[in-house]
Amino acid sequence: MRLMEEKILAEGKILPGQILKVGSFLNQRIDTDLLAKIGQEIARLYDGEGVTKVLTIESSGIAIAAAAGMAMGVPVVFAKKHKSSNVDGEVYTASVHSYTHNTDYTIVVSCDYLRPEDKVLLVDDFLANGKALMGLAELVAKAGATLVGAAIAIEKGFQGGGDALRAQGIRVESLAILDSMDDNGITFRPQ
Amino acid sequence: MRLMEEKILAEGKILPGQILKVGSFLNQRIDTDLLAKIGQEIARLYDGEGVTKVLTIESSGIAIAAAAGMAMGVPVVFAKKHKSSNVDGEVYTASVHSYTHNTDYTIVVSCDYLRPEDKVLLVDDFLANGKALMGLAELVAKAGATLVGAAIAIEKGFQGGGDALRAQGIRVESLAILDSMDDNGITFRPQ
Repeated sequence: MRLMEEKILAEGKILPGQILKVGSFLNQRIDTDLLAKIGQEIARLYDGEGVTKVLTIESSGIAIAAAAGMAMGVPVVFAKKHKSSNVDGEVYTASVHSYTHNTDYTIVVSCDYLRPEDKVLLVDDFLANGKALMGLAELVAKAGATLVGAAIAIEKGFQGGGDALRAQGIRVESLAILDSMDDNGITFRPQ
Repeated sequence: MRLMEEKILAEGKILPGQILKVGSFLNQRIDTDLLAKIGQEIARLYDGEGVTKVLTIESSGIAIAAAAGMAMGVPVVFAKKHKSSNVDGEVYTASVHSYTHNTDYTIVVSCDYLRPEDKVLLVDDFLANGKALMGLAELVAKAGATLVGAAIAIEKGFQGGGDALRAQGIRVESLAILDSMDDNGITFRPQ
């Protein structure tokens, strides 16, 4: 999606530790014109795939998931993050490793909101090592639902998570894929 | 908004402690058809007021704020929650008391994303005691921006926060206001 690449080049800031700051348009401050176009592009990419539900994790994925769900006309479910695995009741859980905080956290979704008959599209703002998406895919599997694929706003291709998921046969569509990011600037993967 | 009242009656569940569970359509699982209509209704209510920015708090307000921002054609900013007040850098902060968890937390927004020239609409999913909205209003005041008002999906009128804000001269529009909620059911305030 050329618009996403242009936004990253115009407003993204590269911080130490290979962090790409996009707070001015994608999180913290959300450009709602761009957000609507992201939703429409995700709907176009997965048109005809029979998606019945969009699944994301709180909190920075919610706006994009909501835009995609509105464009596709399907409900959005978001998994909640729990710091402990001490969760009971009728829920599906998965453990996710956070490299940023060097800790594991549990993601949780109610069994009521993810059903065996669902065809699920995972949506998130960032894809780096892929651990969060793998956790969401695990929730889909535990529900006995079908994983259609994933749609991501920005993939850090050089961190390998997206390609690892693709190697597992999971369809991963990212609106912009960064192949490198350093003092010389950003190189996008041709799509 | 009659549709919101109907949804609450059809799918809301009253839990002990005067908790209204609306996970099936407003949070956890989001009905995106309803979400789009909520955004349009908020845009209609504040039409002509010159709103330049929607402000909310992570995470359950984000989807509604995004829908409102898209319908109004203005950016959305969300304040982040910090458990400690140990925050530095160029940010505005406010302290919010949580009755649910009986603790104070700090909400934070970057000075870059809330400007003196902004006319700000506060958006959230729930309004009970009003402490979160007061914290957001404090961020707006600290930025030197203008507070246009607030738009809320569901107000627990019997907890008094909304009327306290109105008594301060703040315009508060809630799509459904619950005047009572008990074993006999729910009574809405006529609007």
